[in-house]
Amino acid sequence: MFGMRVRVALAEKGIEYERREDNLANKSQFLLEMNPIHKKVPVLIHNKKPICESLIIVQYIEEVWKDKSPLLPSDPYQRAQARFWGDFIDKKVYESGTKIWTTKGEELEKAKKDFIESLKLLEGELGDEPYFGGEEFGYLDVALITFYSWFHAYETIGDFSIEQHCPKLMEWVKRCMERESVSKSLGDPHKICDFVLMLRKKYGIDQ
Amino acid sequence: MFGMRVRVALAEKGIEYERREDNLANKSQFLLEMNPIHKKVPVLIHNKKPICESLIIVQYIEEVWKDKSPLLPSDPYQRAQARFWGDFIDKKVYESGTKIWTTKGEELEKAKKDFIESLKLLEGELGDEPYFGGEEFGYLDVALITFYSWFHAYETIGDFSIEQHCPKLMEWVKRCMERESVSKSLGDPHKICDFVLMLRKKYGIDQ
Repeated sequence: MFGMRVRVALAEKGIEYERREDNLANKSQFLLEMNPIHKKVPVLIHNKKPICESLIIVQYIEEVWKDKSPLLPSDPYQRAQARFWGDFIDKKVYESGTKIWTTKGEELEKAKKDFIESLKLLEGELGDEPYFGGEEFGYLDVALITFYSWFHAYETIGDFSIEQHCPKLMEWVKRCMERESVSKSLGDPHKICDFVLMLRKKYGIDQ
Repeated sequence: MFGMRVRVALAEKGIEYERREDNLANKSQFLLEMNPIHKKVPVLIHNKKPICESLIIVQYIEEVWKDKSPLLPSDPYQRAQARFWGDFIDKKVYESGTKIWTTKGEELEKAKKDFIESLKLLEGELGDEPYFGGEEFGYLDVALITFYSWFHAYETIGDFSIEQHCPKLMEWVKRCMERESVSKSLGDPHKICDFVLMLRKKYGIDQ
């Protein structure tokens, strides 16, 4: 979901780019040189210089191409709020989501509860606005929407329905998916689910 | 170290403020209302609205009072680098530092190794500049210097010398401590060390 954020942000800004995949099971020398500290994707290379960490990259894209489709609000308080919830997603949504597919039994139930609770908080933050950015799709929409590609995997493994718990958030998902910047950048939820189920089998988590 | 960051940033900008302490063992209703999500300090209240998470607060301070002593560089790439290393400090330096004082034996030795390695990476990033912000004290200086108040505790518990491993970083610490914004905002290293030793004793970690 992190690499997809960069693709959505670049698509929103209408920036053309060359995409290079990496084999995360056998990382390339190129990736290790571009992100020697965390050795992770995504890395955006611009003006021959690497920028790492997805939400830092999205802010960089915003600052370099600031005149095209602004992603962050101009008001400092609103910007701080967007950054706060972006950080919340990286901490709470990502962590509980990861626990859903890497654990079982009681641990999985706890993760599911935390995951739903995090999404409910975000649904509250969305309120009655069409996007987290208000009338316009913005930074926080970019930060959260890429998790949608994993929703099917979380729901299948955890045996629950996100729509049942967060109907308004799912309406927001549908609204985002109508944007080409999003629909063309997100991974296929079914492929991701199959991949995750394969991993659970491989590591014996499904036993 | 997180609350101190806000104090250093406000002092650098010359902003007067009223400080309110909270009892973290028995959090006030006020804190729970101001930061209902994480229930943590620091919280900056400005124009009657709460802003949470220390580095997000520092960015807010920078954006509201942008004309006074800029903390972030104007170049988007340099800003992304500052954010990257700020995030690195919150993840790697904080986590390994916390493990130093909350563990013992092999776990403590591993934490010490990770902590020193993180500081060495930061020392490399500092290079031969007086500050992480280059000629000027900036965002990353604010982010890291507040850990200095914990250095004595880490060194006492881990039985090691940060100066021996990172002499240039300690020169940077001394340079920062000459600034009133820093020296007046940081906690007393000896008091913090005594407090941490008391906690280790209380929870039987020193056995």
